[in-house]
Amino acid sequence: MTVVWHNGSLVPAQSLRIDPFDRGFTLGDGLFETIRVQDRTGQRLEAHFLRLRAGARLLDLDIPATDEILADAVDAVAAANGLEAAAVRLTLTAGPGPRGLLRPANPMPTLLLTASPLPGPLPPARLVVARNTCRNEKSPLSRVKSLNYLDGILARQEAARRGADDAVMLNTQGRVAETSSSNIFLQIDGTWVTPPVAEGALPGTMRATLAEAWSAESRPVTVADLLRADAILLTTALGMREVAEVIE
Amino acid sequence: MTVVWHNGSLVPAQSLRIDPFDRGFTLGDGLFETIRVQDRTGQRLEAHFLRLRAGARLLDLDIPATDEILADAVDAVAAANGLEAAAVRLTLTAGPGPRGLLRPANPMPTLLLTASPLPGPLPPARLVVARNTCRNEKSPLSRVKSLNYLDGILARQEAARRGADDAVMLNTQGRVAETSSSNIFLQIDGTWVTPPVAEGALPGTMRATLAEAWSAESRPVTVADLLRADAILLTTALGMREVAEVIE
Repeated sequence: MTVVWHNGSLVPAQSLRIDPFDRGFTLGDGLFETIRVQDRTGQRLEAHFLRLRAGARLLDLDIPATDEILADAVDAVAAANGLEAAAVRLTLTAGPGPRGLLRPANPMPTLLLTASPLPGPLPPARLVVARNTCRNEKSPLSRVKSLNYLDGILARQEAARRGADDAVMLNTQGRVAETSSSNIFLQIDGTWVTPPVAEGALPGTMRATLAEAWSAESRPVTVADLLRADAILLTTALGMREVAEVIE
Repeated sequence: MTVVWHNGSLVPAQSLRIDPFDRGFTLGDGLFETIRVQDRTGQRLEAHFLRLRAGARLLDLDIPATDEILADAVDAVAAANGLEAAAVRLTLTAGPGPRGLLRPANPMPTLLLTASPLPGPLPPARLVVARNTCRNEKSPLSRVKSLNYLDGILARQEAARRGADDAVMLNTQGRVAETSSSNIFLQIDGTWVTPPVAEGALPGTMRATLAEAWSAESRPVTVADLLRADAILLTTALGMREVAEVIE
């Protein structure tokens, strides 16, 4: 039986009801984090919660829990599903509201954690460069992990149609930002390079860890850079994936 | 008691459960329409359903109902809530799915209609120009009414903070696209002008009706145009609102 953590309680997923007027459902008014649980323990929690709180400040959302409660919830939802290693997703929404863009005076946020088995290592990826959409680095939403994921979904669908595993997303200037759901690192002339957050890259937790570990250079990346790189790596909070080739 | 129409049935809102794994909730993977019901009858339904189907094609979503069923549902949900005049919202999502950006092989879409009282006429609006975010006219999502509404919410929040009723949203080139949730018409030198869809304006149903009725010119609009316009009107599927002033 799948168990989820909802506003403070562990409950069977089948008995949990998301309100049809929840603004997460009606307007994508919320945030999420995907957290790796290893040996029953959430990884890089401080970085995840810092990003979550930065997103909540941007959206003017309250987080109805302390970091300590959130950390306990991450471990608890994995354990309740019998998972020693897991991908835990934390979703925070503005909760139910009437029609319109403004929230009610006293919002009742929805805080939901779910756990899935941690995916195993994936074979090296074949990438395309998405032609159908782009990241909007001029919106502050590019710097937080919001529920507005449709551009990434469109890019990922294009990758599948073109026989690839993932799609590189360019920003509005035509430079590389990330892929549909991963940060990207390129090895160029012996140096690891990754696009800056100002270019539309999500400030990923694994991205930050690796950028420090490898003394990676954060600088604008062109499609030409992508094509001449000696190696390319995709990173998410769950792990890393090599890139086999970029298909033009 | 609030009644909603869900996948073919009228049910009490309180008994309707949105699945916590519904991709509308987790990723904003869906579309919506806001439809005016007048004298118990949905207005401009053909235009709404055409746009809905264009959005569904873009997102590769199935709509599990014919236009006739949708039209009946619009009228039925208003009537079930005792409303002769209503704002009916139709929401279509990709339905529940496992973790990740790709949908399950056999998606079970969620189709939900809700009804609210039709808002009365609003006093002339005070507008600001949003500084915190912009419309991404380079994403095809700017041309469909998707669940990804956070840029609009951010702009609307900024308007409230600055003492205004709504915020004009610029596109990535700094030209006028629309407001947080309305199309915009400007009267300049005796001609009505409205930004083209290619500039980031949602192809609104009322926009189309008025553009034809007024022989409006669809052309790029600058902030300077906004400041020198003799009159400004905001339009949604529910109605029109005059603009009293643009606050700099």
